[in-house]
Amino acid sequence: MATQTNFQMKVTEGQLGYVLQDVPHITDYIPNLPTYPNPLRSNPAYSVVKQYFVDMDDSVPQKIVVHKDTPRGVHFRRAGPRQKVYFTPEEVNACIVTCGGLCPGLNTVIREIVHSLDYMYGATKVLGIDGGYRGFYSKNTIPLSPKIVNDIHKRGGTILGTSRGGHDTVKIVDSIQDRGFNQVYIIGGDGTQKGAAVIYEEIRKRGLKVAVAGIPKTIDNDIPVIDKSFGFDTAVEEAQRAINAAHVEAESAENGIGVVKLMGRYSGFIAMYATLASRDVDCCLIPESPFYLEGQGGLFEYIEKRLKENGHMVIVVAEGAGEDLLAAKNEQDASGNKLLQDVGLWLSQRIKEHFSKEKKLLITLKYIDPTYMIRAIPSNASDNVYCTLLAQSAVHGAMSGFTGFTSGLVNGRHTYIPFNRITEQQNKVVITDRMWARLLSSTNQPSFLSHKLLDKAKKEQGPQSQLMDDTTNIADAKTGNKEKSNK
Amino acid sequence: MATQTNFQMKVTEGQLGYVLQDVPHITDYIPNLPTYPNPLRSNPAYSVVKQYFVDMDDSVPQKIVVHKDTPRGVHFRRAGPRQKVYFTPEEVNACIVTCGGLCPGLNTVIREIVHSLDYMYGATKVLGIDGGYRGFYSKNTIPLSPKIVNDIHKRGGTILGTSRGGHDTVKIVDSIQDRGFNQVYIIGGDGTQKGAAVIYEEIRKRGLKVAVAGIPKTIDNDIPVIDKSFGFDTAVEEAQRAINAAHVEAESAENGIGVVKLMGRYSGFIAMYATLASRDVDCCLIPESPFYLEGQGGLFEYIEKRLKENGHMVIVVAEGAGEDLLAAKNEQDASGNKLLQDVGLWLSQRIKEHFSKEKKLLITLKYIDPTYMIRAIPSNASDNVYCTLLAQSAVHGAMSGFTGFTSGLVNGRHTYIPFNRITEQQNKVVITDRMWARLLSSTNQPSFLSHKLLDKAKKEQGPQSQLMDDTTNIADAKTGNKEKSNK
Amino acid sequence: MATQTNFQMKVTEGQLGYVLQDVPHITDYIPNLPTYPNPLRSNPAYSVVKQYFVDMDDSVPQKIVVHKDTPRGVHFRRAGPRQKVYFTPEEVNACIVTCGGLCPGLNTVIREIVHSLDYMYGATKVLGIDGGYRGFYSKNTIPLSPKIVNDIHKRGGTILGTSRGGHDTVKIVDSIQDRGFNQVYIIGGDGTQKGAAVIYEEIRKRGLKVAVAGIPKTIDNDIPVIDKSFGFDTAVEEAQRAINAAHVEAESAENGIGVVKLMGRYSGFIAMYATLASRDVDCCLIPESPFYLEGQGGLFEYIEKRLKENGHMVIVVAEGAGEDLLAAKNEQDASGNKLLQDVGLWLSQRIKEHFSKEKKLLITLKYIDPTYMIRAIPSNASDNVYCTLLAQSAVHGAMSGFTGFTSGLVNGRHTYIPFNRITEQQNKVVITDRMWARLLSSTNQPSFLSHKLLDKAKKEQGPQSQLMDDTTNIADAKTGNKEKSNK
Amino acid sequence: MATQTNFQMKVTEGQLGYVLQDVPHITDYIPNLPTYPNPLRSNPAYSVVKQYFVDMDDSVPQKIVVHKDTPRGVHFRRAGPRQKVYFTPEEVNACIVTCGGLCPGLNTVIREIVHSLDYMYGATKVLGIDGGYRGFYSKNTIPLSPKIVNDIHKRGGTILGTSRGGHDTVKIVDSIQDRGFNQVYIIGGDGTQKGAAVIYEEIRKRGLKVAVAGIPKTIDNDIPVIDKSFGFDTAVEEAQRAINAAHVEAESAENGIGVVKLMGRYSGFIAMYATLASRDVDCCLIPESPFYLEGQGGLFEYIEKRLKENGHMVIVVAEGAGEDLLAAKNEQDASGNKLLQDVGLWLSQRIKEHFSKEKKLLITLKYIDPTYMIRAIPSNASDNVYCTLLAQSAVHGAMSGFTGFTSGLVNGRHTYIPFNRITEQQNKVVITDRMWARLLSSTNQPSFLSHKLLDKAKKEQGPQSQLMDDTTNIADAKTGNKEKSNK
Repeated sequence: MATQTNFQMKVTEGQLGYVLQDVPHITDYIPNLPTYPNPLRSNPAYSVVKQYFVDMDDSVPQKIVVHKDTPRGVHFRRAGPRQKVYFTPEEVNACIVTCGGLCPGLNTVIREIVHSLDYMYGATKVLGIDGGYRGFYSKNTIPLSPKIVNDIHKRGGTILGTSRGGHDTVKIVDSIQDRGFNQVYIIGGDGTQKGAAVIYEEIRKRGLKVAVAGIPKTIDNDIPVIDKSFGFDTAVEEAQRAINAAHVEAESAENGIGVVKLMGRYSGFIAMYATLASRDVDCCLIPESPFYLEGQGGLFEYIEKRLKENGHMVIVVAEGAGEDLLAAKNEQDASGNKLLQDVGLWLSQRIKEHFSKEKKLLITLKYIDPTYMIRAIPSNASDNVYCTLLAQSAVHGAMSGFTGFTSGLVNGRHTYIPFNRITEQQNKVVITDRMWARLLSSTNQPSFLSHKLLDKAKKEQGPQSQLMDDTTNIADAKTGNKEKSNK
Repeated sequence: MATQTNFQMKVTEGQLGYVLQDVPHITDYIPNLPTYPNPLRSNPAYSVVKQYFVDMDDSVPQKIVVHKDTPRGVHFRRAGPRQKVYFTPEEVNACIVTCGGLCPGLNTVIREIVHSLDYMYGATKVLGIDGGYRGFYSKNTIPLSPKIVNDIHKRGGTILGTSRGGHDTVKIVDSIQDRGFNQVYIIGGDGTQKGAAVIYEEIRKRGLKVAVAGIPKTIDNDIPVIDKSFGFDTAVEEAQRAINAAHVEAESAENGIGVVKLMGRYSGFIAMYATLASRDVDCCLIPESPFYLEGQGGLFEYIEKRLKENGHMVIVVAEGAGEDLLAAKNEQDASGNKLLQDVGLWLSQRIKEHFSKEKKLLITLKYIDPTYMIRAIPSNASDNVYCTLLAQSAVHGAMSGFTGFTSGLVNGRHTYIPFNRITEQQNKVVITDRMWARLLSSTNQPSFLSHKLLDKAKKEQGPQSQLMDDTTNIADAKTGNKEKSNK
Repeated sequence: MATQTNFQMKVTEGQLGYVLQDVPHITDYIPNLPTYPNPLRSNPAYSVVKQYFVDMDDSVPQKIVVHKDTPRGVHFRRAGPRQKVYFTPEEVNACIVTCGGLCPGLNTVIREIVHSLDYMYGATKVLGIDGGYRGFYSKNTIPLSPKIVNDIHKRGGTILGTSRGGHDTVKIVDSIQDRGFNQVYIIGGDGTQKGAAVIYEEIRKRGLKVAVAGIPKTIDNDIPVIDKSFGFDTAVEEAQRAINAAHVEAESAENGIGVVKLMGRYSGFIAMYATLASRDVDCCLIPESPFYLEGQGGLFEYIEKRLKENGHMVIVVAEGAGEDLLAAKNEQDASGNKLLQDVGLWLSQRIKEHFSKEKKLLITLKYIDPTYMIRAIPSNASDNVYCTLLAQSAVHGAMSGFTGFTSGLVNGRHTYIPFNRITEQQNKVVITDRMWARLLSSTNQPSFLSHKLLDKAKKEQGPQSQLMDDTTNIADAKTGNKEKSNK
Repeated sequence: MATQTNFQMKVTEGQLGYVLQDVPHITDYIPNLPTYPNPLRSNPAYSVVKQYFVDMDDSVPQKIVVHKDTPRGVHFRRAGPRQKVYFTPEEVNACIVTCGGLCPGLNTVIREIVHSLDYMYGATKVLGIDGGYRGFYSKNTIPLSPKIVNDIHKRGGTILGTSRGGHDTVKIVDSIQDRGFNQVYIIGGDGTQKGAAVIYEEIRKRGLKVAVAGIPKTIDNDIPVIDKSFGFDTAVEEAQRAINAAHVEAESAENGIGVVKLMGRYSGFIAMYATLASRDVDCCLIPESPFYLEGQGGLFEYIEKRLKENGHMVIVVAEGAGEDLLAAKNEQDASGNKLLQDVGLWLSQRIKEHFSKEKKLLITLKYIDPTYMIRAIPSNASDNVYCTLLAQSAVHGAMSGFTGFTSGLVNGRHTYIPFNRITEQQNKVVITDRMWARLLSSTNQPSFLSHKLLDKAKKEQGPQSQLMDDTTNIADAKTGNKEKSNK
């Protein structure tokens, strides 16, 4: 019944439309590997656990708002320890790399991979790759041991260092082969996971017994399928400080406007949740919802209205919002002025100009960009626990011989997800979804949508936010089916 | 196919073992009520929402770790706005009451009920009941309006006041009838929700058109079925302070021991999660896992071992832990000394005595009880969003004519759950589950379980923690069925 | 022995070079005013105080590092309640205005003026002027009562609103006269206090029985004579967050540079103290210490050296630092590009250009500007107490008939200081003082001083920081004398 | 003119009643020691400092509220670097010991002693004594270097460990002699400084070239002469959390009472300042102001009044308050029940009993003891700077050959104070002073003083709080004289 569709994903079907989108396993291309009993069997901490090893058939549905007779749809393999492992403790030679921007929780993930390998599986050979992908071929490695990483979860950033880019598949796999790594843990965002997918394919081509495990990292929460990315809660929490400050500044001035730029190049989740959590925000602008400044229903009109009503207001803008407006502006100037690329600065400037030149209205605008203050803090308690479980799942997966997978939370359950499901598209705020409606209702801002756009938006089938509640599920179960049939 | 089993729950079955445990509706006992189009239809914020009203058939499974051929099991009705409502805006006469101990987020829930009724449904008659259940018949009410509640989510506690007990069903329903309330929002824990169930039954008996909606509140997370209770994340976060302090005190002394008591009379969730998040804890004692002090494998032996290895240690104890030991102690004293009831003080005293008298070992023990400092803080951003959605769900449910329900998050989806499912048992840490194993593995503490106890524990079928991952689901789907067949 | 030197200050001399620079009193220009016993005499809280009223002769020396035979130098009148007051409770008609930028503690000062007038002196007529000086003649007033202001100290900003400029002496004094105010409390910085001095003089000219009391506000700590300005501690504390974030960002990147801009247009106190408190800063740039970028001993050379040694670094720059460099840059561009005025953006840009173009060195620079997040927070406990005492002193002074004074802390004692002493110059970091040497020693940064500049700096007689320790005092005692002889 | 009065203090007199209470110097008992030029002369950081070395004659007055003709009173020697030092870098062999309870800032002081010795004076031999005084003779030492201590100021507690007692002068000085220490830095409270005084005398008797420098540590601020002790600001700040929580708990209950116990065995400074900073406290009980529970003017009466007026209240009680009442209670019970020794528990119990038994009034009382959560936090920015300067002063003093001194802030200036002035009495809140009157005025609590007690209090001459403003100074200058004449 299973159909090997490609290197990235194995699909199995069951009753009533049940579909399992399974992750690869080293034995898919190296048959007859020896297995060993899982050392957790003799671990005293685990000796009390009744149903301790995950059943080989456990799976978790992607969509769970169902009807009596709904087809069951796409499922993912449940994460966790298996009865048999494919590595002896002595054999394990693991490495960890962190790529891309900072995100609260990176150090917790690193710590827990090291601790899990050692305390659960007795594997002590773990090295950190220094400074992102390029560290594979250009750098010394960083020795990692439970003692070295013991307190790092209390610090922000990543002790391994990080960088963007630097992905050279052949060089990286050469380095993996040369150094004899057989478990590669890759922590990073969209681009990084795409890189991990290519590394896994190259390793598979070379027929190496190497497990490649990804842990998705994106403070913007723009990775699809998973419930939310680690560090997101911490980021939303910390964003409250900036919004509070903007609110105080705005309140204390006549026609005071506080503008806060938050992270979110392609997805406005942080802006949306920070707005919903704070309740002091009068307008939230995100990449998914185009807006315009001038004319009826535009931002300037709304600002004027709010100032008249309240005397002050707070605007939250995600860094990727209004990109079309910025682009247009750039063409006019033909100057490549980089400073204008910062939507917060640009928006602040435009608002000031509008009210001073055209409206002759004295406003006081304060602009706050807390980006690096948010990214750099240590993760909060809830993210600490989350990172711990993500790391443990990744280690269980690699020890059990799975490869080419990311460790991800789906509907509150830890699962293994094929790389291609994580990287095929970006998770975005669905502006025709109830969560965005809640935001609009809480801020009372205009939707900035003409009727034409609105109809278009309603017809489009966007990717779905998993964060919390309220995605429509029926269509998506179909999407799952469609994806399968495409392969 | 549907079978009306009792007043508390309506059960419907479907294909492949699908079971819907549905909540009551006012039309169950008052047929032919007029309905009205949902005013949200004309709300500009919602005009962009594609699939905005919840489909009448939407349901959410309780257990979602499934096999290819697993029976589908128990489902709950999905929360959200319906096409038709059973109250006109002018007709709504709502009241809100908060009962029991403080919990971060109470004010956010109050705020959002008031805001949702007003901004979404145009209903402006909302009163607060002063000081818990007894406020229904002994107190003046507190007027509530969007303006009055606008900033209360930034403050801890509850602006309505709260108290324990005071539940007199007849008096309360008399008061509801006298004042003409037709929507009653009841925020409180296990006992409070049991009270709400009785109030609903009495109202039903009297044939009143009154919707009774519960919002479960318990900082201990001891309510079953739901993923987690609001305020829990905030509490775990704040508990880190106390654990950090205990760690610093312990580290700075020779044979330093830091003891932290955390909330959890019957369930050790806060203690467990705070321990997992902190990683500075050497021993976590919870009500679900009995322990003993003396002899082989006992706590004293473990303490001595840790002090010898590390020179210091931190113990986290949930307030309900070791109740059997405290009881025994009380019998010996035959004095009813209430101070001994505090497990933290008792444990600290016993440790001091043991090491000074029997071991002649100089220890320095510092005891920290942060309970009231944790309960009283405002909710963090993540709990603020969570409380907002809980409150909105409750309002949507009441407006749609549902009654006798609690608003609860199940597998990340907002649902309506029959009172009896919420109150039939307590949510407890399952010590034969992997989460507790993770804790044991992280602290290296002994399991305090003899082999006999261990076997017993493995055989028992405990209630399941929904918080995060890793409950075994197959058995529980059966439990769901069993419950049904019992009715 | 006393010599009335001018409207702003009364000078009295005593033994051994003792000089009292006294503040004006309403009786200086309206003789024979009736006096009343201080109502505090019958206040139960004060009935236990032994020496409760300030002795008319109490004074506090400006300079207190002395030798056996040092002349005693300048003194200020000690603040506090007097035996006799010049206003009956019913007669008092007070107003409060806040001007200039936000600063932690503004609301505490407002609260305590209102509370002190009411609870200590029974005076209940207090109005807030809306939005700074211009509120005197263009705005409605804000009613103030103990109840209204009761919780405002927990919020940042100012409930009165604030603005810059708008000072029109005649209009303001007309308004004071029209509304019958007889106590005017003016909270603001350097410019605001200069305005207060002019208002006082105009009132004096018109012969009005109006006490004008200033409370110096400047987050930059750039007001001379006083120990430190309120809100300063809070600001330095909050600045740690930004520095920590910059440190984490820098550490996690190869050749990572974190740049933090802190407040301080003319004085680098916040930058200096935040650097000393943090210890994670490698370079601190302030307005008082000119620096240069290129060549030997320049900033670029130092950055390169630090990156080579450590791999990362943190730079703190006060907003007024390097103004000469920015000015030069502006002339070249001849464009009035306002964005270049931000020294943090400018410096970041220059560093990036230097290392990418000239050094071909890959650096990662993150720029953080926490200004508005710092200004807008509520004051911490220590500033709350400080603001309370400042406000009480101001009220005691006005009730006792003093006018044309600011309430200020001198060597840990509350005093009344003539306006002209507060506004005659700005308090600046003395870079030839030991505190700056301590900073240089802690960061190891170059002094950026050529030998010529260094000699010049040593010869100059700068104003002296009162914050904490270590001002040279002998010279200043002379300064005090010199000032006196100039009048 | 100078008179060597005893080993502890050298007294010099000058004009107009000037008195210098000077600290001992090693040359007092080892004449003809060689001196060396201060290495700071060639330190680039200090090369810009104009008047960099402290003038040998610099002194700081203890009392600075003066009259035109006031005698000048007691002065202390100003701290800071001298032109000549008595140790070569190679010769220095320093040790640091921390004694007594935890206090925010201990690690900062340790860090800065190590850094100052190394970076300023090139002295690299520094050892930490493990676990307080007894570490001198029973323990291994802890190696200290700038690198080891680099980040410790971000952590609470003390990396050296601490303990109470264990002072055996002969054994300690033997150990100092054996290990060849010639600079001994002793950080601790009242008892510890008395111990340091005895160690210094023993060293002097033995004629050893060893500088003994004390740094006073007391979170209670109960050390006389100095402005305030390090960690005090941090403690008051952190205490706000507990008071806020108590306020929220009290507000949310009918007749809610929040009781917060704060540190202060003999002195109520933390309780007083935390109360003044918070403004949510209705009653503050401190050791210096006796109170009584029953009858007219008693605490119970006041509680009843406040509950009637407000419905809730907050009580702050210092740990040493009401000791006379507790003692009496203990005698009645004749049981030595240790739990009753905790004034917070005792007071809570008594209030509960009173209102349940005698008043039949339902109250809800919540008791919070944040002691160990306050002690264990890292110091805030302001305390970090303060600790840095204290440590630097101590190092400058020891290098310059002074001994038998403590480093202390007097009127905002760093000084060297003879041990006997620090230990001769305890700093206490002067309840006949204006600061306590301010507190009474802010809380509106009764003074609990009968007329007889009140008169007595007014006649007594208590030690004076230096913290902030408002001590009467004339009398104290006399005290200074009196002390001198006693010697």
